[in-house]
Amino acid sequence: MSSAWGEKIKVSIFGESHGAAIGAVLDGLPAGEELDFEAVALQMSRRAPGKDPAATPRRESDLPKIVSGVLNGRTTGAPLCALIENTNTKSGDYENLQRVPRPGHADYPAFLRYGGFNDMRGGGHFSGRLTAPLVFAGAVCRQILQRRGIAIGSHVLFVADCRDTPFSPTDIPEDLLQRLASVPFPVIDREAEQKMRNTIEKARMAQDSVGGVVECALTGVPAGIGGPLFGGIEPVFSSILFGIPAVKGVEFGAGFGAAELYGSQNNDAYYFDGGTVKARTNNAGGILGGITTGMPIVFRAAFKPTPSIAREQDSVDLKTKENAKLRVHGRHDPCIVSRAAPVVEAAAAIALINLMTL
Amino acid sequence: MSSAWGEKIKVSIFGESHGAAIGAVLDGLPAGEELDFEAVALQMSRRAPGKDPAATPRRESDLPKIVSGVLNGRTTGAPLCALIENTNTKSGDYENLQRVPRPGHADYPAFLRYGGFNDMRGGGHFSGRLTAPLVFAGAVCRQILQRRGIAIGSHVLFVADCRDTPFSPTDIPEDLLQRLASVPFPVIDREAEQKMRNTIEKARMAQDSVGGVVECALTGVPAGIGGPLFGGIEPVFSSILFGIPAVKGVEFGAGFGAAELYGSQNNDAYYFDGGTVKARTNNAGGILGGITTGMPIVFRAAFKPTPSIAREQDSVDLKTKENAKLRVHGRHDPCIVSRAAPVVEAAAAIALINLMTL
Amino acid sequence: MSSAWGEKIKVSIFGESHGAAIGAVLDGLPAGEELDFEAVALQMSRRAPGKDPAATPRRESDLPKIVSGVLNGRTTGAPLCALIENTNTKSGDYENLQRVPRPGHADYPAFLRYGGFNDMRGGGHFSGRLTAPLVFAGAVCRQILQRRGIAIGSHVLFVADCRDTPFSPTDIPEDLLQRLASVPFPVIDREAEQKMRNTIEKARMAQDSVGGVVECALTGVPAGIGGPLFGGIEPVFSSILFGIPAVKGVEFGAGFGAAELYGSQNNDAYYFDGGTVKARTNNAGGILGGITTGMPIVFRAAFKPTPSIAREQDSVDLKTKENAKLRVHGRHDPCIVSRAAPVVEAAAAIALINLMTL
Amino acid sequence: MSSAWGEKIKVSIFGESHGAAIGAVLDGLPAGEELDFEAVALQMSRRAPGKDPAATPRRESDLPKIVSGVLNGRTTGAPLCALIENTNTKSGDYENLQRVPRPGHADYPAFLRYGGFNDMRGGGHFSGRLTAPLVFAGAVCRQILQRRGIAIGSHVLFVADCRDTPFSPTDIPEDLLQRLASVPFPVIDREAEQKMRNTIEKARMAQDSVGGVVECALTGVPAGIGGPLFGGIEPVFSSILFGIPAVKGVEFGAGFGAAELYGSQNNDAYYFDGGTVKARTNNAGGILGGITTGMPIVFRAAFKPTPSIAREQDSVDLKTKENAKLRVHGRHDPCIVSRAAPVVEAAAAIALINLMTL
Repeated sequence: MSSAWGEKIKVSIFGESHGAAIGAVLDGLPAGEELDFEAVALQMSRRAPGKDPAATPRRESDLPKIVSGVLNGRTTGAPLCALIENTNTKSGDYENLQRVPRPGHADYPAFLRYGGFNDMRGGGHFSGRLTAPLVFAGAVCRQILQRRGIAIGSHVLFVADCRDTPFSPTDIPEDLLQRLASVPFPVIDREAEQKMRNTIEKARMAQDSVGGVVECALTGVPAGIGGPLFGGIEPVFSSILFGIPAVKGVEFGAGFGAAELYGSQNNDAYYFDGGTVKARTNNAGGILGGITTGMPIVFRAAFKPTPSIAREQDSVDLKTKENAKLRVHGRHDPCIVSRAAPVVEAAAAIALINLMTL
Repeated sequence: MSSAWGEKIKVSIFGESHGAAIGAVLDGLPAGEELDFEAVALQMSRRAPGKDPAATPRRESDLPKIVSGVLNGRTTGAPLCALIENTNTKSGDYENLQRVPRPGHADYPAFLRYGGFNDMRGGGHFSGRLTAPLVFAGAVCRQILQRRGIAIGSHVLFVADCRDTPFSPTDIPEDLLQRLASVPFPVIDREAEQKMRNTIEKARMAQDSVGGVVECALTGVPAGIGGPLFGGIEPVFSSILFGIPAVKGVEFGAGFGAAELYGSQNNDAYYFDGGTVKARTNNAGGILGGITTGMPIVFRAAFKPTPSIAREQDSVDLKTKENAKLRVHGRHDPCIVSRAAPVVEAAAAIALINLMTL
Repeated sequence: MSSAWGEKIKVSIFGESHGAAIGAVLDGLPAGEELDFEAVALQMSRRAPGKDPAATPRRESDLPKIVSGVLNGRTTGAPLCALIENTNTKSGDYENLQRVPRPGHADYPAFLRYGGFNDMRGGGHFSGRLTAPLVFAGAVCRQILQRRGIAIGSHVLFVADCRDTPFSPTDIPEDLLQRLASVPFPVIDREAEQKMRNTIEKARMAQDSVGGVVECALTGVPAGIGGPLFGGIEPVFSSILFGIPAVKGVEFGAGFGAAELYGSQNNDAYYFDGGTVKARTNNAGGILGGITTGMPIVFRAAFKPTPSIAREQDSVDLKTKENAKLRVHGRHDPCIVSRAAPVVEAAAAIALINLMTL
Repeated sequence: MSSAWGEKIKVSIFGESHGAAIGAVLDGLPAGEELDFEAVALQMSRRAPGKDPAATPRRESDLPKIVSGVLNGRTTGAPLCALIENTNTKSGDYENLQRVPRPGHADYPAFLRYGGFNDMRGGGHFSGRLTAPLVFAGAVCRQILQRRGIAIGSHVLFVADCRDTPFSPTDIPEDLLQRLASVPFPVIDREAEQKMRNTIEKARMAQDSVGGVVECALTGVPAGIGGPLFGGIEPVFSSILFGIPAVKGVEFGAGFGAAELYGSQNNDAYYFDGGTVKARTNNAGGILGGITTGMPIVFRAAFKPTPSIAREQDSVDLKTKENAKLRVHGRHDPCIVSRAAPVVEAAAAIALINLMTL
C-alpha cells in the first residue's frame, strides 16, 4: 500500500517529475535471465512523449541507466535498480498550484495528505512520468515471461466513442500481440485509428482532452495460475492496474457487460480441441475462481481524460478562501491512452510474474 | 496474494463450503472498540440465503461464534476470530464435478491448481459462502468507521438491463446509505426493484441466472486518505473487491464512462461551500491521485450471472477425454446481486480502515 | 508485525488463554500433503503442561480440531484452520493484575498498549499457551519438510548452569534428532538431565523458577536456501523465534562465541567428501551470507526464567500510585525450557518452509 | 524476505560492491521532516572504511546523492531514494572466487543459489558495503525519532575477550549515547579501547581477523510500543539486525545470561519514581511481552571475525572437484566491530520507527 508493489518480485518506484531522477528497484528477479535492452528501450519509447503526433511535444530521453542487478547482460539475482534522469523540465509552469489546485489533479488531496510538503513541480510523485519506471520494470518481466511462452499486447479500444475492433477473446494470435506491443499507437483497425486521431486532434484544438480504454491480452499463460479470494488474477492485476494514474475502471473478460448477461450466455462451454480443454467463448477472460483457465487473459482499463487542459477552469484559492479561476499552462497530452497501452502491458507483466513459479 | 488481505488490519478467511466451519481472523483491530453484535447479525442476514424470494431457498443460520479478541463486548486488541458453522449441506449434489467441470465455475482451473486435492463439495473454498466471514469482518470494521463519522451503503444499480436510479455523487444523504445498508434488496427506486425482481423470476423460471451491478458509496471519509501509485484508494479497494467471487469489473466515479468524456466535462470544479472545499461534480468518485478529496467515494462492482444453472450445458469429461453434457443440480440463486451488496460494503469497510490512521 | 507470520505460508495465531479457544490458520500450504495427526498430537503433547514432573501440573487436552483445509487426511490447498479449546481454566487466579502488574510479565506494557482493554485472564493473548497453535502449525510444516528429507530436533542445552552435551555441528545423526523430537525432556546426556531436573526441583521448592537454552538443529536442508540481507536464514528464523514468549536471545552456529574467535579459527574450511562439498567445522551454523551451505543448521534460543513465581515481589499499584507488594498465585512451571523445545522446532519448521520452493 | 525490509516505512536496499552504485529507497516516510544532511554524513563516515587505524585503509567517499523524496531540505512524503557511487574498486583482487570459494564468505552458497550468475566482484550484493545505504536509511529515521525524544547509541562491548564497561541498563544518559553515536570507535572505557586496538593490531599482524559484540541502547522510547508474538520489539528488531552481514547472535536485556538466572533474580521489580513507573533492574532490556516498558531498550549483536584473512586457507576447487588452497588478497578490516556500531544503530532506528505511530 505504497509506491512498492509485489511479494515475489517487489517493484519499488521512486522519483518526482522535476527531481533529479526517477526509477525503480526490482527485488526478487531470478538470476541468469538475459535482458535485451533494445527491447526494453522499445517499450520505454512507446510510453515516452513526443513520439507520436497524438501525444505531447515534450521530449524525454527516458533511457534508463542500470545501477545494479545486471552483469554481462544477465540478471544477477540481486535487486535491479534503474534510473531515468529528469531533463527538459520547465518548473516555472507549475507555480501557484498549491494555492489554486487544478481540478482533476491530485493537487488538493495531496496538499492535505502531505501537509503541503509534497513536490508539486510537474505533478511530483503523482506525475504520469512515474509510469516510465513501471514500463521499465514491466519490460524486464515481459522478457522473462516471453521466454516461458507468454505474449502480452494491447490496443486502444476506445478514444471517447471511437471504437477499435475488440480482441476475439478465444483466438488472439501471438503475432498480433507482438505487433501491437511494438508500435506507438496500437490499434487493430486502421480506420478506427484515423477516427481516434481526428477526435484527439479536435480535442487539442479545443484546448481540451479526451479519455479512452485500453484492452490488453496475455496468451500462453498456463492454466492453474492464481487462486481464490485475494490471491486471484483479478485482485492482483487490478491492484497494480489501478496504480496507474488516470485509471478509473478495470474489467476482465465480459466485465461490466457480464452484468447484463444470463448465465446460459455468460458461461463458457468447454470442449476438447485435440487433447486440450478449451472454451467456445471466453467471457471469463481466461479466469475462473481467480485462476487461469488456459484461455487468453483479456481485460480492459478505462482512462479518464488528461486533467491538464488549457481552458479556464473553476477552482478555489486556498489562501483567500474564495472561489478562483485557473488556467493550466504547459505542454500536455490531449489523450494519453495510446501512451498508456505499454504501461498497462507492463503492469500485467509484473502482476503475472508475481503469481507464477519461475 | 492469498485468502488473507490487509496490512494494518489483516483479515484471514478460512473454510470450505461443506467443511466443519468457515470463519475469519482479524488481526490488528484497535482495542476497546465496542461491538454491536446485533448490527453484525443484520449484515450477516442481508447476505444470508433464503431471506428474500429473489434468492435461494437454502437457509443458513450464519450466526458467527466469537472465538477470541472480544471481552465484555469490546475488542481486546488481540486477533478476533469468528467461526460460522456449516449446517444444512447436501454434499451429494456435488459429486462428479471433478470429472465433468461446470462451465463458469472454478472446477477445472482449481483441479489443475490443486492437483485434484481441493475440496469440491459445495464449491469448497471457492464457494460464495466464503463471503459470509468477509461480511462479518466488514461489519466489525464498519462499526469502527461509523464511530468516526463514516457511512457506507450500496444498492443494486443493475440487474441485466433493469436500472435503479444511481447515486447523486455529490450529495448522498447518510440516512439513505443507512437505509440501504439495512435491507435485503437495496434499491433507491421501488419501480426499478419490481422490474429487477421480475427479471430474476423470469430467469429462475427459465432455469437460468442473471448478473448485475452494485453501486456503493462512502460518506464522511476525511480528505487526504490514501496515496499515489499502489497505495491509492482505487488499487487498495479493487484488490479486495475483485476477491469477491463473481466480480468481473470495478470502476470508481465516472469509471468506464470517463473514457468517453472530455477533460472539460470530467474535471470536477472546486468551490467553497462555507469554509469547505467541495466539487460541483464528482466524476472522480471522491478520489484524485489515489487520495480522498472529501467528496463521497463512489464505485461500482459488476457481478457475472451465477454460473450454477439447471439447464443442460456443454462440458468435457476429463477422464474419457471426450466432450460431455452436464446438468447442475442443487439450490442456487438465480441472481446474487442483492446478496452481494453487503459483501461489497464489507469489502469497502475493510479496505478503508486499512488506509486510515485510527 | 502482528500475530501473523510468513509470506509464502502465512501462519495466523489467534486466541486468549481463558477465552473460548485458541488456534491457527495456515494459508498457502501445498495441496495433497498427507498429514499424520498422531505425529501432530505427539508434538502437541511434548509442549502440553503436566506431561513431565518438571513442568506444571495443570493439564490441557490440547487436541486440535481441524476446521478447514484438510480432506481425507490430505491438505486441500485452502487455508488450514485448527482450533484448540480452552478448558480447565481458573480465571479467579488472575484478578487484580491490571492494578498491580506482575514483574517480568506483559501486564504493565500491555495495559498501556491496549488501554486496559486486553484480556488479562491467564495472560490473555500473551500467554505461553499461544505456543500450542504454533506447535500445531510447525507440526504440519515439519511433516512436509520431512517428506523432502529434512529432520528437525532440539535439546535442552542449559538449565541455569547445568549443561547438556552440545550438538557436534558437523555431524548430527538424523535418528538423534528424531529421538529428541519425540520426548518430553530432550537431552543428549542423561546425567545432564538429572542435574537439570534437580535444579528445577530446587527452584520449585524455593518458590522460584529458572531459565535455560534450547539448541536446535536441522539436517538435510539443501544448500542454496535463503538470501542476503533480510531474506537470510538468520533474520527469517529469528523473526519467528523471538516471537516465542520468553525468548531473549538467539544465536546461529558459534553465535556469541564467534565474537571471541579469530577469523582463522571461525572460518569453516571446505573439503570434498566424495563428490560433496563439506566443511570441517561448522561455526557458521550451516549459513553463510544468509544462505544454507548444506551443513546442518544449528542455532540456540535463550529463555528467561518463568516470570510467575510464588514469592512475594515488589510492584506498583497503578490506582493508588504507590509501591505495592505482589504474590502470584496459580500453577506455574518452574522451568519451561523442556516444553519450549518443541516450540522452537515448530518455529524453525515454519521459517524454513517459507524460504523453500516446494 | 529479501533486500527490502519494513511495512510502514519500507527500506529497499540495492547495489553490488563493484557495480555502478549502491543505494536505498525509503517508502512511507512522513512528509515535512527536516533532514540534517551533515548529521547523515556523520553517520555515514562512522561506517566508512579508512577513518580509523583499526579499520581498512580503503577509502570511500560514501556521500549519498539524494535522488528523490526531499525538497528544500524536507521530506516530501514520496519515496526517498539515495545513491552512493562505487569508486576506488579493484575488481582484479576478486578473480577466481567462483571456482575456489572463500571459507566464511557467501561465495559457495551464493553460487548455488544464483546458479553462478551473481556478481562476485567485491562480494557483490553480499558485501559489507551494502550496509552503507542501511546506515543512510537509519540516519534519516534516527532524526525523525530524535525529534520525538528518542536517543540511540552503541559501543563496542567486546573485541575477542577485551571487554568495555557495559551500559548500566536502568540509567543510560542521553548524552552518553550521543557521544558514542558520533565517534568512529565508540567505547565507554578508554582503557578497554586501548586493549581492543591492541588485539586488533595483533590480529592484523598475524594476517588474521577478530570478532566482537556491539551493545546498543535506545532511550526515550515511550512505553506501549510493539506487541505480542511476531509484532514484538525483539522479533522486529532481530529481523533487521540479523540482516547485517556477519551478525551471528542477538540478545535483549539479560539475553543469554537470563538463561542462567532464577525468576526472582531476573524479574525487574517496579517502583514509582515520582509519578512514573520504573523498574529497579532492567533484565528485560526494556521489553516485556514484546512491548516497551519505558525503560531503556538494550540489546547486543555478536559479529563474527571478518572472513577475509590473508593467511592461506583450505578450500575446494569446484571445477577440478579437488581440495585446494586459497589465499585472499585485497584490503580488509581485521575487525569490523567498530564500523558495525553505526550499522546496528541504523537498524535499530529503522526497526523502531516501523513500530511507532508518528
